[in-house]
Amino acid sequence: MSHVNNEASLESAPIGRRRFINTAALAGLTVGVGACTEKPATAPAPTPAAPAAPTASAAANAGAGIHPKPGELDSYYGIWSGGHTGDMRILGFPSGRELHRVPCFVPDALVGWGRTNESKAIMGTKPDGSLRYTVGDTHHTHASYTDGDYDGKYAWINDKINARIARVRLDTFVCDKITDLPNVQGFHGIFPDKRDPVDPAINHTTRVFCGGEFSIPLPNDGKDAADPTKYRSLMTCVDAETMGVRWQVLIDGNCDLLATSFDGKLAATNQYNTESGVHYEDMMSAERDACLFYNIARIEQAVKDGKTTTIGSSKVPVVDGTKEANKDPKTALVAYVTVPKNPHGVNASPDGKYFICSGKLSPTTTTIELKKVLDWFDGNLDDLQKSIVAEVEVGLGPLHTAFDGRGNAYTTLFLDSQVVKWNVDAAIKFHAGDKNAKYVVDRIDVHYQPGHINATHSETKSADGKWLAVGCKFSKDRFLPVGPLHPENEQIIDISGEKMVMVAEHPVRPEPHDFIIMRRDVIKTRQVYELDDFPNAVKDPKDAGLFREGNKVTVKLTSQAPVFSPREFTLKKGDEVTLILTNLDKVEDLTHGFAIPHYNINFIVNPQETKSVTFIADQPGVFWAYCTHFCHALHLEMRSRMIVEA
Amino acid sequence: MSHVNNEASLESAPIGRRRFINTAALAGLTVGVGACTEKPATAPAPTPAAPAAPTASAAANAGAGIHPKPGELDSYYGIWSGGHTGDMRILGFPSGRELHRVPCFVPDALVGWGRTNESKAIMGTKPDGSLRYTVGDTHHTHASYTDGDYDGKYAWINDKINARIARVRLDTFVCDKITDLPNVQGFHGIFPDKRDPVDPAINHTTRVFCGGEFSIPLPNDGKDAADPTKYRSLMTCVDAETMGVRWQVLIDGNCDLLATSFDGKLAATNQYNTESGVHYEDMMSAERDACLFYNIARIEQAVKDGKTTTIGSSKVPVVDGTKEANKDPKTALVAYVTVPKNPHGVNASPDGKYFICSGKLSPTTTTIELKKVLDWFDGNLDDLQKSIVAEVEVGLGPLHTAFDGRGNAYTTLFLDSQVVKWNVDAAIKFHAGDKNAKYVVDRIDVHYQPGHINATHSETKSADGKWLAVGCKFSKDRFLPVGPLHPENEQIIDISGEKMVMVAEHPVRPEPHDFIIMRRDVIKTRQVYELDDFPNAVKDPKDAGLFREGNKVTVKLTSQAPVFSPREFTLKKGDEVTLILTNLDKVEDLTHGFAIPHYNINFIVNPQETKSVTFIADQPGVFWAYCTHFCHALHLEMRSRMIVEA
Repeated sequence: MSHVNNEASLESAPIGRRRFINTAALAGLTVGVGACTEKPATAPAPTPAAPAAPTASAAANAGAGIHPKPGELDSYYGIWSGGHTGDMRILGFPSGRELHRVPCFVPDALVGWGRTNESKAIMGTKPDGSLRYTVGDTHHTHASYTDGDYDGKYAWINDKINARIARVRLDTFVCDKITDLPNVQGFHGIFPDKRDPVDPAINHTTRVFCGGEFSIPLPNDGKDAADPTKYRSLMTCVDAETMGVRWQVLIDGNCDLLATSFDGKLAATNQYNTESGVHYEDMMSAERDACLFYNIARIEQAVKDGKTTTIGSSKVPVVDGTKEANKDPKTALVAYVTVPKNPHGVNASPDGKYFICSGKLSPTTTTIELKKVLDWFDGNLDDLQKSIVAEVEVGLGPLHTAFDGRGNAYTTLFLDSQVVKWNVDAAIKFHAGDKNAKYVVDRIDVHYQPGHINATHSETKSADGKWLAVGCKFSKDRFLPVGPLHPENEQIIDISGEKMVMVAEHPVRPEPHDFIIMRRDVIKTRQVYELDDFPNAVKDPKDAGLFREGNKVTVKLTSQAPVFSPREFTLKKGDEVTLILTNLDKVEDLTHGFAIPHYNINFIVNPQETKSVTFIADQPGVFWAYCTHFCHALHLEMRSRMIVEA
Repeated sequence: MSHVNNEASLESAPIGRRRFINTAALAGLTVGVGACTEKPATAPAPTPAAPAAPTASAAANAGAGIHPKPGELDSYYGIWSGGHTGDMRILGFPSGRELHRVPCFVPDALVGWGRTNESKAIMGTKPDGSLRYTVGDTHHTHASYTDGDYDGKYAWINDKINARIARVRLDTFVCDKITDLPNVQGFHGIFPDKRDPVDPAINHTTRVFCGGEFSIPLPNDGKDAADPTKYRSLMTCVDAETMGVRWQVLIDGNCDLLATSFDGKLAATNQYNTESGVHYEDMMSAERDACLFYNIARIEQAVKDGKTTTIGSSKVPVVDGTKEANKDPKTALVAYVTVPKNPHGVNASPDGKYFICSGKLSPTTTTIELKKVLDWFDGNLDDLQKSIVAEVEVGLGPLHTAFDGRGNAYTTLFLDSQVVKWNVDAAIKFHAGDKNAKYVVDRIDVHYQPGHINATHSETKSADGKWLAVGCKFSKDRFLPVGPLHPENEQIIDISGEKMVMVAEHPVRPEPHDFIIMRRDVIKTRQVYELDDFPNAVKDPKDAGLFREGNKVTVKLTSQAPVFSPREFTLKKGDEVTLILTNLDKVEDLTHGFAIPHYNINFIVNPQETKSVTFIADQPGVFWAYCTHFCHALHLEMRSRMIVEA
C-alpha cells in the first residue's frame, strides 16, 4: 500500500503528482485497501516522513485540565451519535466521561423507553400494539442555531436503517418526536438550517435537511427493481418545530453528508454514485462525483407554485432536482459542482465563506466558495466549477473536516490514520498558483482509521479552537482486550497551539459517527418536572387505587420514597390493565423505578414525572412490584404487592 | 436528621449509645430518612467532626497513574453490573473507562442480541418466537475461582425482575447461558463457591448460589395470596458448568446478599423480614433479623438421601432450611445467626476467617467467625450467637464491605455518605472488652449515598489493597446537568496508604450495583473466532447464495471488506427467510454489521463469526442491506441488494 508523501505535502507538492484515485486507479486502490485490512492490527499508522513531535512541555501544558478533579465540572457538553445502538450519548468534555444516553429509535430497558405508553406513541407501533422497529443506526447529530451559534434548544439525529429523524430536547435530554421520511432508504446526512433564506427576522433554525443515501425505485413497490433508470434518492426538508415533512427534492446520486450555509440560503450534500449504478463497478464508472447546492428559497417558491409531484402514497410535495432538469442557473433549484470521486464529508467553515468537501477516494479536499455558488444561481458566474477555489492534496482517505475559527481546517485521513491541519487561505493561494503557499500546517497520528472529527463550537460562528475530538473506527491494541468486539477510540487533541497535541483517548461502544461539542453555558436543563406537565398525573396518594370497568382496569399509583401507594392491588386473570405511576418526590435526582416480576415491565419515573404502561394480567399469583432505581435506605423494602386471582 | 457522632466513633464509642435502630426507633428513622430525601440535592454529606484531610502530597502521589496516557493500558479489569439496563459492563481500572458492555437479559441493537437466532436461543422465546423478556435488573456479578483467586473463566450475573442467572465467558465476553430459577421471585444475591466442601481435589468453582429475596406463596398459583404463612423464599444452587439447577433450600425471611467461604463449606445469606410479613410494619416487628449459614455438604447429602420435596411443576429437589426445622445443630442444614435489623451486605474476608454483615438499619457491622459456625454445626459450640466476635458501631447506614488484605475493612455508610475504614482485629478486641482498641482507622466523604464498594481482588485471597471503587447512588451536583435523570457516581479511592485518598469519579448510567475488580493478567481473551466454532458457517464466498425449498428460503452470505457475497438476492413476498452470514475477515477488530432497512434487522459478525436471522419477506421492493459497522474506506459502498418481488 502506498502512502501520500507527507513531506511532499508539507511542501505543498505539485498538483497532479497523484491527483486523485480515479476509476483507472480504483482496482489498485481496492487491492491496496484490501491488503491494509489483512493486517491493520499489526500495521500501525504510517509515520510521517517528517514527524513533528510536540515538546514535552507543550504536551504537558496541553493536557492540563483535561481530567477534572473530583467535584470539578467539564467545560463542554459533547453530543454524540450512538451508531447502531440507536441512541444519542451525552459526554462531558474534554474529560470524555459519558453523562447520559438518550434512547431514541431503540427500546431502552433502563427508562422503559419502548415499554411505556408515552414512549411507544413517539416510537410508533404496529396495529397489534408492538413496536414497529427495535433497531436503529444513528450517524449524525446536530443542534439548533440562533444567530449562527448553538441555542441549546434541540438536537436532531438520524436513523439510517429505517429512515427516521428524531428530535431531542436539550432541556430534559429526552426524545420528543420521531418522523418517518417517506420514500427514503438509507437516510444519512442531516443538518439544521441556521436562519431563513428570505426573512431576516428569522435568525434561528426552522428546517432540518435530511439526505437520502440509497437510490431505490420510486415508488419502491417491487415493480421496477430491474430497471436502474428508475432508481433515485431524495433530499428531505423537515420542519424543526412540528417535525412534519415539508418537501423533498429528487436528485441524482447517493446523498452522503450534508451541510448548511450560515446565511440560510443553501444546503449542500456530497453525492457519490452520480452514475446511479446499482452495482459496484457501475457506481465507480465516472471520473468525478458532485457536491450539490440546494437553493432553499427557490425550492420553497416552486413548492408554493405547485411545481411538484408526489410519490406513491406520500402526500409530501417533491420538486425535481435532477441534473438534467437543473441546467439553467436562472431557474435551477440545485447546482451540481463536480468534485473528485466518492466525496464523503462536507463541512461549512465558521467564517461562513466556504464548504469543504473531502475526497475519500482522492487525497484532496475541495474548497467551494459560497458566494460564487450564489453568483452562479444569480447568473453572475459563467461556469459553476469556478466556485472551487481550492482542491489540494492533504493525505490518503480524507473524510471530515473541523475548524478552529482561526482559519485552519482539520481533516481526518482514514487511510493514513492521521489528522492533518491545513490553512484554508493558504490552500486557496496554492490552488491559485502560489506554489510557495504552505497550506499543510501540522499532522498527527491517530489510532486508528479516523472517521468523524469535530472541534469545540466548530460548526458555529463561535468556533473557539480549543479541543478537537476524533472518532477512530479501530482501536486494535489501545485498550485492554475484551474479546472479538473492540471498542472504538475517541481521541482528544489540544488544538490551542500551533501544533496539535494528543492528550487523552476514550474507548466507546461502537459506533459513534458524528458529534458536536458545545460550551456548557449553552445548555439550560430542567431537573424536576411539574405534575401539570402530565395530563394523567396522580397528584395525591389519596387519588391512588384501582378503578375497574368490566375487565378494563386502571391502577393509579404514586411513589414517595420509600413507599408506593397503594401498597397492594388485586386483579383478575385476563384483566386489561393500565397502570399510571406519578413520582411525587420533588427532590432532584430522586428517581424511582417500577418493575413487575415475570410481567416484562420496568420503567422509571423522574421527580414529579408520570408514566403509564398497559398489559394483560395473564399470570395468576403474587407479584411484588418493586422499585428498581435506588432511592432510599429502605429502597429494597419499597414495593407494591400485585395479586392476580386465578 | 441526626447523625452518628463521628468523633465518638473514632474513639470507639461505648456500645449501647445507640445500639441499633430497632422497631421502636423505626418511626423516627423513617421520618429522618424522609426528611433526608426532601433535600439531598442541597444537603451535602455531613462533614466528619474530625475530618482527616489527606496532605496535598499524599493526594498527588495517590492520584498518580490513574489516568493512562494515550496508548497506556489499564492495570485491572472492572466487571460491573448494569442494573436495569440488564447487561454487564467491563471497565478499564483505575481509569474507569468503559471498554465493553455484554448484553445478557435485554436485547442489544448493536450486536443483534435478541435478534439473531443464536442469541434468541440463549435468551428464551415464547411459542410465537418472540422474546420472553426484554427487561432485566442486574445487581450482582461475581467471577469463577481457582485456589481462592479469580481464574478468568466465567462471571455470573443475576436478573432480579425475572429470576434468571446468566453466565458470561471471560475469553470472549459473551453471555453463553441463561437459567431460570423456579419458584423464585426477586432473585438478588449471588456468589460462586470457591472449592468443594468435601473433595479437596476440586479447588475451583463448581456451584453458584442464588438468593431469593421476595417471599411468595409456594407454588405461586394465585391460591394462597391472602395467607402470609404460606409465603417463603428459596436459596438456589446452580451448576457452574451445566448451568442446571441442582437444588433449592426453603428458608425464612427475604434473602438479601450472599457470600461463600474460602473452604467451600458454607454459603451465607443476610435475611431481612425474618418475620415473613407481607406488610411493611409486619416486616419490622422483630428486634433482630438473621445471617444464615448453609452447610453445603449436609444439604447435598440430604438431596442424595432424597430428603426433599418439589414445588409446583418444578422437578428441582428442595430441602427444608426453615428455622423451625433446623434447631438441632447436629442435623441442621442451615444455621440462623441473629444480627441487627434488616442486614444488607455480607462479605467474606480475604483471610478466610470472617463474614462481615452490615446493619443497614443499625450503625453496626457484625463480624461472624467461620470456625465458630462450623464448631456449632459440629456440636462444639453451645450457642450459635457466640460466633459473633464483633458487633461495633461504624456509622449510619452501613451497607457493604471491601478488604485490603492487610486486615482492614472498608464499609459504605449510605446515610452518612462516607466510607469508613476499620480494622477487623481491633474491632474484635473492642467487642471483647478492650475499650482502648481503636478500630476506626479513617473516614472519607463520598458523593453521595454509597451502596456497593469493592477493592482490587478484595473477594479473593490475593486482595492487594491498591484501589477502592465506590458506587454512589446519587450524583446530584457532581457532573454537568443532563435533565431529570442523573448519572450515578463511581468514585475511585487510593487505599495504598493509611489514609484513603479520593482520586477520581466517573458518571455511570444507572444503575450499577455490585462489581469486582481483577488484575489484567487474569483475563485471556480471544479476538478472532474460528470458522469451525459455528456449525452453520459459510466458509467460502463460492458457497454463498440463495437456497429455496418451497417458500422456505436460506440465504447464505459472506462478508469480506468491503464486499458482501452474494451482492444481490431475490425473494418472493411471503417467503420465510433464514439468512446466515459468516464474516470471512480474519483481522482482529474487523467486525461487520448487517442491516436490512425497514425489516427491523441489524446484527454484527466479528472476525470469523457466523450469525443467522429468520424473518418473513412481507414487504415488496428493493432493500439495500448494508454494513453498519465501519470496516473499510469503501464501507459505505458495502451492501447487498435484497429484492422482494410483489
